[in-house]
Amino acid sequence: MNKMNMKKQIGFIGVGRMGAAMVRRISCSGISCVVYDKNIEAQANIPQKIKFTTNLNNFIESLSEPKQIWLMLPAGIVDTVITELKPYLKNGDTIIDGGNSHFTDDIRRANELKNDGINYLDVGVSGGVWGEKRGYCLMIGGSKNEYEFLEPVFKALAPGVSGAKRTQGRENEPSPAENGYLYCGENGAGHFVKMVHNGIEYGLMAAYAEGFSILKHANQGLDKTDVDAETAPLESPMNYKYELPLKDISELWRRGSVISSWLLDLIAQEMFFSEDLDNYTGKVSDSGEGRWTSIAAIDLGVPTPVLTTALYSRFFSQQSDSFSNRVQSAMRHAFGGHQEKNTLNGGEK
Amino acid sequence: MNKMNMKKQIGFIGVGRMGAAMVRRISCSGISCVVYDKNIEAQANIPQKIKFTTNLNNFIESLSEPKQIWLMLPAGIVDTVITELKPYLKNGDTIIDGGNSHFTDDIRRANELKNDGINYLDVGVSGGVWGEKRGYCLMIGGSKNEYEFLEPVFKALAPGVSGAKRTQGRENEPSPAENGYLYCGENGAGHFVKMVHNGIEYGLMAAYAEGFSILKHANQGLDKTDVDAETAPLESPMNYKYELPLKDISELWRRGSVISSWLLDLIAQEMFFSEDLDNYTGKVSDSGEGRWTSIAAIDLGVPTPVLTTALYSRFFSQQSDSFSNRVQSAMRHAFGGHQEKNTLNGGEK
Amino acid sequence: MNKMNMKKQIGFIGVGRMGAAMVRRISCSGISCVVYDKNIEAQANIPQKIKFTTNLNNFIESLSEPKQIWLMLPAGIVDTVITELKPYLKNGDTIIDGGNSHFTDDIRRANELKNDGINYLDVGVSGGVWGEKRGYCLMIGGSKNEYEFLEPVFKALAPGVSGAKRTQGRENEPSPAENGYLYCGENGAGHFVKMVHNGIEYGLMAAYAEGFSILKHANQGLDKTDVDAETAPLESPMNYKYELPLKDISELWRRGSVISSWLLDLIAQEMFFSEDLDNYTGKVSDSGEGRWTSIAAIDLGVPTPVLTTALYSRFFSQQSDSFSNRVQSAMRHAFGGHQEKNTLNGGEK
Amino acid sequence: MNKMNMKKQIGFIGVGRMGAAMVRRISCSGISCVVYDKNIEAQANIPQKIKFTTNLNNFIESLSEPKQIWLMLPAGIVDTVITELKPYLKNGDTIIDGGNSHFTDDIRRANELKNDGINYLDVGVSGGVWGEKRGYCLMIGGSKNEYEFLEPVFKALAPGVSGAKRTQGRENEPSPAENGYLYCGENGAGHFVKMVHNGIEYGLMAAYAEGFSILKHANQGLDKTDVDAETAPLESPMNYKYELPLKDISELWRRGSVISSWLLDLIAQEMFFSEDLDNYTGKVSDSGEGRWTSIAAIDLGVPTPVLTTALYSRFFSQQSDSFSNRVQSAMRHAFGGHQEKNTLNGGEK
Repeated sequence: MNKMNMKKQIGFIGVGRMGAAMVRRISCSGISCVVYDKNIEAQANIPQKIKFTTNLNNFIESLSEPKQIWLMLPAGIVDTVITELKPYLKNGDTIIDGGNSHFTDDIRRANELKNDGINYLDVGVSGGVWGEKRGYCLMIGGSKNEYEFLEPVFKALAPGVSGAKRTQGRENEPSPAENGYLYCGENGAGHFVKMVHNGIEYGLMAAYAEGFSILKHANQGLDKTDVDAETAPLESPMNYKYELPLKDISELWRRGSVISSWLLDLIAQEMFFSEDLDNYTGKVSDSGEGRWTSIAAIDLGVPTPVLTTALYSRFFSQQSDSFSNRVQSAMRHAFGGHQEKNTLNGGEK
Repeated sequence: MNKMNMKKQIGFIGVGRMGAAMVRRISCSGISCVVYDKNIEAQANIPQKIKFTTNLNNFIESLSEPKQIWLMLPAGIVDTVITELKPYLKNGDTIIDGGNSHFTDDIRRANELKNDGINYLDVGVSGGVWGEKRGYCLMIGGSKNEYEFLEPVFKALAPGVSGAKRTQGRENEPSPAENGYLYCGENGAGHFVKMVHNGIEYGLMAAYAEGFSILKHANQGLDKTDVDAETAPLESPMNYKYELPLKDISELWRRGSVISSWLLDLIAQEMFFSEDLDNYTGKVSDSGEGRWTSIAAIDLGVPTPVLTTALYSRFFSQQSDSFSNRVQSAMRHAFGGHQEKNTLNGGEK
Repeated sequence: MNKMNMKKQIGFIGVGRMGAAMVRRISCSGISCVVYDKNIEAQANIPQKIKFTTNLNNFIESLSEPKQIWLMLPAGIVDTVITELKPYLKNGDTIIDGGNSHFTDDIRRANELKNDGINYLDVGVSGGVWGEKRGYCLMIGGSKNEYEFLEPVFKALAPGVSGAKRTQGRENEPSPAENGYLYCGENGAGHFVKMVHNGIEYGLMAAYAEGFSILKHANQGLDKTDVDAETAPLESPMNYKYELPLKDISELWRRGSVISSWLLDLIAQEMFFSEDLDNYTGKVSDSGEGRWTSIAAIDLGVPTPVLTTALYSRFFSQQSDSFSNRVQSAMRHAFGGHQEKNTLNGGEK
Repeated sequence: MNKMNMKKQIGFIGVGRMGAAMVRRISCSGISCVVYDKNIEAQANIPQKIKFTTNLNNFIESLSEPKQIWLMLPAGIVDTVITELKPYLKNGDTIIDGGNSHFTDDIRRANELKNDGINYLDVGVSGGVWGEKRGYCLMIGGSKNEYEFLEPVFKALAPGVSGAKRTQGRENEPSPAENGYLYCGENGAGHFVKMVHNGIEYGLMAAYAEGFSILKHANQGLDKTDVDAETAPLESPMNYKYELPLKDISELWRRGSVISSWLLDLIAQEMFFSEDLDNYTGKVSDSGEGRWTSIAAIDLGVPTPVLTTALYSRFFSQQSDSFSNRVQSAMRHAFGGHQEKNTLNGGEK
């Protein structure tokens, strides 16, 4: 199989926020796209010139052979859509799952599809809303042949080598990794690497967040604190009388410091808009990869306390659980007669 | 100096919940007590036969020489009270701090008082509201001579050897440790050991609390969960369809299991009253020792991830900080266009 | 089905350390046991009067109907043994898995066996080497009918109500939970509760361990520490000059303190033998339940930072991974020119 | 006081790795430097044209008035050097501490020096060995007047606005923060912000390290694992059969991904040299700021589980403590008869 003929096209299922931006970027590169989405409103997100249909038959008929169908869907419905697709596919066709599937689902699906001669690639995609402009970082698992056939699509999506200064010693023609896409190994490898990528992301985000929170609270010594037996008073108020310029600090660290990063760029941007981040309440969602990363680490016996702790911080922020805390309060009451500070009935007596 | 003459007495400053119970237990043993508390209402907590005064002069005059004055006060006011007391004290008198002072304060105070020939003992006291009946576990730091002089008081407060089955191999006359009080070393050693005791307590409490919380949520598979891109749906609902009998489980584990403990006894008691612990909201206070334990561990380079994590769980429960979470939400919005699930204005659009 | 006829017996497969002790305890209660173990040497662990065979046919033929077969095997081989057993079983027979199976395996097995009318109970057993004498704490999942049929066996194994002081308010006939065994719910519930039990156990153990480690290192201020740019020197050596009596402290806390527990009893016993625990190197194994507990918590979105942290501490102790540390060292070298303190080649220049 | 006269110079004490590079960068900008270092060999690190002396008198005499003396020393000896310097200083002179002092020491020192009219600035410096070329990120605390006087020096050391793309919305003349230096507030504020910077750095580094460690171990399913009661076997070996190309992954993530950062650039560089990082053993030092960050967080009641966990991971890597693990092994032996896998005597029987 040769590398994808540039005249050929790619079918795309799911053009939500991510999918639509990817379609736009691919089509800019000269590869044609055919789009299927059940939601007619999704058409508004893609250029008029791109064929869009809400009818699966139409979609399939518009695809040249062998069919290359890229799914950009919530992980929870990928299996359903593959089941719908399967009757239309034949030997040599390919499904690419660009969503956030669990890598073990990739292994299972690839095995199931292999029986019918259908290829399956799992592609982890990073880049978020910036990807259309910056390019997407792509982590790919599956058959190497099929990867090579689709390489032009990956190259079109990826940022290219200019996205960062080249590493010292890397010369000559940039490798795929330097262009921003990489064949990682057999099925599941793409989403495995993307999963760990997101696990790291959780850790990085929590590290910045905790640091800025300390800076924010460095003014506590300016408050008056009450002394009672239930609250640990600030022991050294004289040490915590700083009103630190968070907006400027987030900007400062972007240059010359060890902790400069793209995430820090975003913090500086957000704090430039609103230093106190008043538009956010602090309920931090999590979407699967962070959980799977910790589970993989536990399976492997690899200690990842920072990544798991970052995940749990999100759980805490979601406040789905107060029972654990209630158990502790109950014990404190039982052994020490301690009253909670604020009871449901409006304060202790 | 000989062991305390049984006819002699002890002066007591501070008869709140803990102090009053200790005075009652001491006085039951035949050692007389003289009590000083600025709060006249505190007198209600102690037997009528015990001399009580709100006047410092009266208190001092009631004490036999050398004066033995036990402070049972919030850590934050101990220095103030010592300063008030100092003019009334002379060479050979003794202050015993039975509160929750930081051990470094003990070191400082002992050095300051030593210049005037005044003894200082730091005594960590565990036992809570049950101590009056069960006896108090006492951890003592300071001069060994002075410890020995006061040993009858410690013995009166402590549970005695009958409080637990003797360890195999321990025979003959029970040691002080077996009786429930222990000379731990120079000044600060008593509160240091008590500090670590409480640090461990935080860890134990959190371990039970987290475990019961898992049990409580094992019924999540019975719910319907929504599928969207922001929430990780329960991936295997079929595995989490248990309505577990928490009250019975807390009772069950008290016998024969590896995790039986006094804290578990309390959980079983509380769950017997109310299986859902509905009287508690889950705001878990912390009172100094837990913080100091982690700081000591950091000073010493000893990793104590469980103890510190337990402390941080209390911080989370106090919800004093949402800024860290807001920083994370801001990043998520910036890179992925993610909306928070519930905004301050009542939900996302 | 009536409660088990006392004249009937139970078949036992696997009489290693745990299994043999359980057989001895059951048979003491008057219930007869028939034992099958492939390892002839295992016979030495059980009384001569108990029928023992290394032949599966003999074992099966010795069982009265309906057959009750208790497996006490490593989790990894339970499925294999069930497959071997299945041809010999018929409608109404029962398999009891008393090992440490994952609760999801219980759900699967129970469903598979149900097709052939074979009952399956999952029983979590706590008690370790002390169970034979103290009694075992039993957590049971499966059909309630079958649980009731086997209740005499559970009662024989359990500690009975005398194992702990009754909870205030619990009067009249002790409940099963008070006797030390409990029907927890449908299949998997028994091992689920046991799993969380062990997860808590990991947390409790780590809490004590960390606390004693702080106490142990409280003498660091007595050392001379070097000052260089790579090591954080002890900043306040004057605060850490205690040689604390660990053996006595472990004994002390057993009486009157909030943290008294059976695990602490064991620590006191071990430190009585050897205060420095010199017989141990500190490589702490983990055996499944601790991992599964954290995975269940992650599945459920319940933050369990203490339990997972305790698990990771065991991973760290196993030192299976140094790659994470090498990555950090590489970064430190790259940005700061920092040399590792001890390199493979014998120290920095 | 006007901004520093460009003809004036700065005195520099301590030209180790960091200090020498800073002197070179400052002197390139046209500000003259005078250097004092007790170690004659240090002279080799700075240009010949820069005055260097090992004699304190000579150094002082070479400084123009008011004297501006920048210390670049290990935190542990700053107080000693200030004591040596003090007799030579007079009203209006300034000491700048550019090392890694604890911010509370800054507060103390500034107060002490103020009595003699001597200014004190605390300057946190980030940039490591790359700073000479990239510029240093500077966080400054103390009198604003004095900060302004020295601004030319800070500007010379800082990277300048070209070090990163400007944040959207920031236009006109770049602010100091955009140039890479910032006045953070009263004394201590500079080192406080630098401290938190390093705390964040620990968290970021650990997040990457843990992620790469998972990737590294994703091949565990290719091994044969033994089944015994003490080790949790890999439950799903079929899921972990990847040999992932770590070197390429570290390169890949530099472009287009959410986790691109300068630290990741370094990892890519190090893995380009040696994918397995064979030159490192994984003993990760810590140098004060990470500890102080966690202590500040605890003081303030701000939960920073990720930052503290990262710190503790370093403690674990230093393996200074095995006692905690020994306590756990002792308990496991006591309740379960568990043997450690590898004992000091060469393995269990």
